[in-house]
Amino acid sequence: MDDTALTKIASRLRYLILKTTHTVGSGHPTTCFSSVELAAMLFFKYLRLDPAHPERLSNDRVIFSKGHASALLYSLYTVAGVLTEKELSGYRTFKSPLEGHPTFRFPLANAATGSLGQGLSIGAGYAWGLRRKFTVHSSQLSDPITHHPSPITNSTYDATLVPFSIPRVFVLMGDGELAEGSNWEAAAWASHQKLSNLIAIVDVNRFGQSEETMEAGNSESFRAKFEAFGWGAIVVDGHDWGQLDAAYEKAVTYHSGPVAIIAKTVKGKGIPVWEDKNGWHNKMLSLEEFEKWLDYFKKESGDVKGVIQKPEMVMSDGLGVMRKNTKINPLPITNYQSPTATKLAFGNALVRLGETIENLLVLDADVSNSVHTDMFAKSYPKRFLPMHIAEQNMTGVALGLSKMGYLPVINTFGAFLTRAHDQLRMMPLSDGTVIVHGSYVGVSLGRDGPSQMGLEDIVLFRSIYGSTVLYPSDPYQTEKLVEEALKLHGVVYVRTTREPTPVIYDEKTKFHIGGSYVFEPRTTNHEPITIIAAGITLHEALKAQQELAKKKISVRVIDCYSIKPIDEKTLQKAANDSKAIIVVEDHYPEGGLGDAVRSVVGKIHHLAVTKLPRSGSAAELLHEQGIDAEGIVRCIMRP
Amino acid sequence: MDDTALTKIASRLRYLILKTTHTVGSGHPTTCFSSVELAAMLFFKYLRLDPAHPERLSNDRVIFSKGHASALLYSLYTVAGVLTEKELSGYRTFKSPLEGHPTFRFPLANAATGSLGQGLSIGAGYAWGLRRKFTVHSSQLSDPITHHPSPITNSTYDATLVPFSIPRVFVLMGDGELAEGSNWEAAAWASHQKLSNLIAIVDVNRFGQSEETMEAGNSESFRAKFEAFGWGAIVVDGHDWGQLDAAYEKAVTYHSGPVAIIAKTVKGKGIPVWEDKNGWHNKMLSLEEFEKWLDYFKKESGDVKGVIQKPEMVMSDGLGVMRKNTKINPLPITNYQSPTATKLAFGNALVRLGETIENLLVLDADVSNSVHTDMFAKSYPKRFLPMHIAEQNMTGVALGLSKMGYLPVINTFGAFLTRAHDQLRMMPLSDGTVIVHGSYVGVSLGRDGPSQMGLEDIVLFRSIYGSTVLYPSDPYQTEKLVEEALKLHGVVYVRTTREPTPVIYDEKTKFHIGGSYVFEPRTTNHEPITIIAAGITLHEALKAQQELAKKKISVRVIDCYSIKPIDEKTLQKAANDSKAIIVVEDHYPEGGLGDAVRSVVGKIHHLAVTKLPRSGSAAELLHEQGIDAEGIVRCIMRP
Repeated sequence: MDDTALTKIASRLRYLILKTTHTVGSGHPTTCFSSVELAAMLFFKYLRLDPAHPERLSNDRVIFSKGHASALLYSLYTVAGVLTEKELSGYRTFKSPLEGHPTFRFPLANAATGSLGQGLSIGAGYAWGLRRKFTVHSSQLSDPITHHPSPITNSTYDATLVPFSIPRVFVLMGDGELAEGSNWEAAAWASHQKLSNLIAIVDVNRFGQSEETMEAGNSESFRAKFEAFGWGAIVVDGHDWGQLDAAYEKAVTYHSGPVAIIAKTVKGKGIPVWEDKNGWHNKMLSLEEFEKWLDYFKKESGDVKGVIQKPEMVMSDGLGVMRKNTKINPLPITNYQSPTATKLAFGNALVRLGETIENLLVLDADVSNSVHTDMFAKSYPKRFLPMHIAEQNMTGVALGLSKMGYLPVINTFGAFLTRAHDQLRMMPLSDGTVIVHGSYVGVSLGRDGPSQMGLEDIVLFRSIYGSTVLYPSDPYQTEKLVEEALKLHGVVYVRTTREPTPVIYDEKTKFHIGGSYVFEPRTTNHEPITIIAAGITLHEALKAQQELAKKKISVRVIDCYSIKPIDEKTLQKAANDSKAIIVVEDHYPEGGLGDAVRSVVGKIHHLAVTKLPRSGSAAELLHEQGIDAEGIVRCIMRP
Repeated sequence: MDDTALTKIASRLRYLILKTTHTVGSGHPTTCFSSVELAAMLFFKYLRLDPAHPERLSNDRVIFSKGHASALLYSLYTVAGVLTEKELSGYRTFKSPLEGHPTFRFPLANAATGSLGQGLSIGAGYAWGLRRKFTVHSSQLSDPITHHPSPITNSTYDATLVPFSIPRVFVLMGDGELAEGSNWEAAAWASHQKLSNLIAIVDVNRFGQSEETMEAGNSESFRAKFEAFGWGAIVVDGHDWGQLDAAYEKAVTYHSGPVAIIAKTVKGKGIPVWEDKNGWHNKMLSLEEFEKWLDYFKKESGDVKGVIQKPEMVMSDGLGVMRKNTKINPLPITNYQSPTATKLAFGNALVRLGETIENLLVLDADVSNSVHTDMFAKSYPKRFLPMHIAEQNMTGVALGLSKMGYLPVINTFGAFLTRAHDQLRMMPLSDGTVIVHGSYVGVSLGRDGPSQMGLEDIVLFRSIYGSTVLYPSDPYQTEKLVEEALKLHGVVYVRTTREPTPVIYDEKTKFHIGGSYVFEPRTTNHEPITIIAAGITLHEALKAQQELAKKKISVRVIDCYSIKPIDEKTLQKAANDSKAIIVVEDHYPEGGLGDAVRSVVGKIHHLAVTKLPRSGSAAELLHEQGIDAEGIVRCIMRP
């Protein structure tokens, strides 16, 4: 594709972006316009992707970390013939998959973005997964991850030394979002892992939403940062075809690690009233200006089409299939006799299940010797990823790995998972599946003090859309629940304790997601008191039960190990036949086990956001969730 | 203080650290040992602090971002005579203020740390606050923030050019924690603000808790990173007195911006079995080794004392007093007639109240043109801090400012506050007061899509210890609640909406923290249905009330604008005399308004962590919170 053709494509993209955003009256056209040449050169010269088969291993991946440039993303696929202009015109309207910021509803987005600074970690996860899968699939060929000494400045680098290339992951980023520290977590890890198939494209358009960035458009400042973090860096004029061509060529043939193309651009490039000006971030042109420029870009582009090149070869490993069909045929469970910390049983379970679940990967934020993931590391060193003290990146990488068909288990203290709350809440919007292990929870952590105590982790995970929350109290239960957890979809949280606790179950006891275990009263009484607990407080409840039995007080104890979904039936039954209900938990009172129990035993009707939201008008969305006046009336009028 | 004396002090510190950690059987002696010389040189030669008056403006501040080196922190103050050896021996025991990781219970810690990567932001907040206060107090002197061109390499820099120095903030950091992206948010902002009174001391001891760091102890890698982020950087041998002396001398006289002393150290330095080895992070010596080395360090140190030098001058502005005594004597409220977004009323309130509350600072994460903090920026440019797209740093800086007696209001979308969840949960442990404004919440946000919608923010803030959660529905109510919010202590969350909503109150309507507003039924009925709502759904509830009145269905609507504390009395009364209760909210079902309502109207006893936790044994802590067997028995036996 030559420059003339690309120039036409650029005009066509500007035409489509302008039209779609102006029509719906929102979107971020100026931030799309600055990236037009960067994206056009990528999509129509360097990208190797078969959009009809996005799941194929052989495809490159593109992630728009600057998710507000969604109109550009969808316009690129319109120019490529993947979307029709009619489909594009649904942009940001209710029920269209083309949302204001991309979600899994548009699968070619590869990740939901829009909360800035998340794309690079997810891209690093994809890149790591691609490299690994490609290496496995191509073992008959020579080592594809050989690191050739190829300084980015060396234009004589001989690409033929590498017999084929691992698919690449391109992440488009804004300069404003580089203020998010999560990017530097990703940058450090990607270079540490020498992910030479990861390419960041930084659109340095000088402005955030409301102000100039701290670097004030200084591309060299970003070069210094990326280089300090071990990346190759190429600074270019982001609107110059020749420079862009050379930059991509260098980037895709650079094999010493990840590389960043840092492009100086003009925000709003192409429409003078917008160019390089603050204050136009999500604002529309006047009708007069709009019509003038729409007309102009139409004339310039002549409705040109573009072609995304397919990969040289087709390679598919049935992504995700391995996971769904995995037969969990686990080895025998350890024989637990003396009090055991559930965190240790969790570590044992990973080793045991890792034997047959080959796509199981364990990621650890430098706590492996505390939460016992070091045992997995020893047994399966190639499936253990040290993520260092960077929980946001760990979570983002896990999402990328999940999208590559792996089953990632991330590990740290429950308290420190708050660091990744934004990444976790975004995960359902990417339709990711990640097992999260939060250990060292509650005040029972002890001497290390409150900074280390997870006291808000249950509710953090309860409030993730489509999540599962499990809280075992005994080593056998832990082993069994981990087994169940690995079969689930979405975000699955397993909470474990540091303190050793008594063994109260055995290998034959059955536990299931949404279940509970009832310890019936030791003394008979028609109306017992019911204590509901989980984890460490279950043991306290059982002690209390014993104590109270001596006083002839009848107490039932329910082990509510599945906090979400919760055992509604058992709890309702208990509520009906109990004199009193007591919930006891090692967690702050808000949103934990107590609130979970109340949500099923109370008599309050609760209307809230229960469907995964999407783009649309406020009225449409309130209506969809049943939280508008009509929904309230319906609730009240229900027979 | 000469090297011989410092060497004795170093041995004394090692003696105290070894003794306290070994006695309690936990703590992190090896990470203390690597920092001993770094800290000794700082405390006994460069620090200017009167420990008897830690609140004084003229004091330097020290923050141990590597909070697990708490035994070193407390030992330093023991050597300085601030703590007795007996007090030190309480380390990590129940009720001692010397917790496993520092909290506000030991005020000289200046910040609670232990969740890594938070200290630099907090330190930047202190440094900004000190510079500003010092400038205000010293207006009769020449400009103290003049930036002299003094490259760090220029040893001929003439310190006499600066007539006096603004107190400095020293932040001790680990190399492992630099993997946390939050540090780079802080680094970028601190250099952008040219905070030359901020000095980071990086202890490059090569190991995290469980593994080698990504940089593998390479100090030059950190130099490159800090320099790329606009800092001065000095690389030294962290155990060489001469090099350390020169480094501190350069650092405290460097006036071009913040500076990092990057010290290559040996983890466990001083005890051969520990030195430069992985696996000893929180592990104790054998008794034999312990006794041998305790004896050795005792002999070497000869029970030496150290002296922390006092500042050249005493300066105090009664930190915090201004805030407590502030008379809020606000200007008249805007006359609201047509539907108004509560986010706009929030912006108006800040401008109105900023006039008389002089310590009010507004921090904004690049959303000022969305959430209307741009009006405050225009009215009071010197009290508006652009924080760019970096919510973690914004929150940490706000904490530092709060500790300097300012009243910071941080602003972004409710969804993006999840980024700062860890900083927010830690804030009560520092006893900080920060007003948090989360806007653009709920599905009513509309076209921008789910990544931008705050749907878990109510519960995030409900679960912060000691927090207040307010959710206004009308512009007058917003103005009044912001006024109330500014009088509170702790983390105060105000949730506002993007959509304009009708004006339903007037200037005379009274609202208070813990209150609600009841719209009684429009038709009489002895047993009405009660709808509880807040914010945007209140308007839907009122519409439903109108609709149902036509059908002669009696409906009471409660505006539950104070979600925490919640109006227990009114809600209980409503529960008692209502046929049914419906809660409707624009938030995920878990932990939001529904759970808050149920927590006061249900009949379930709930035992959970209701006191701010501390260090101690597991049993002591479960007991303190009343969640052990004894607490359960007590609850059941209660008459």
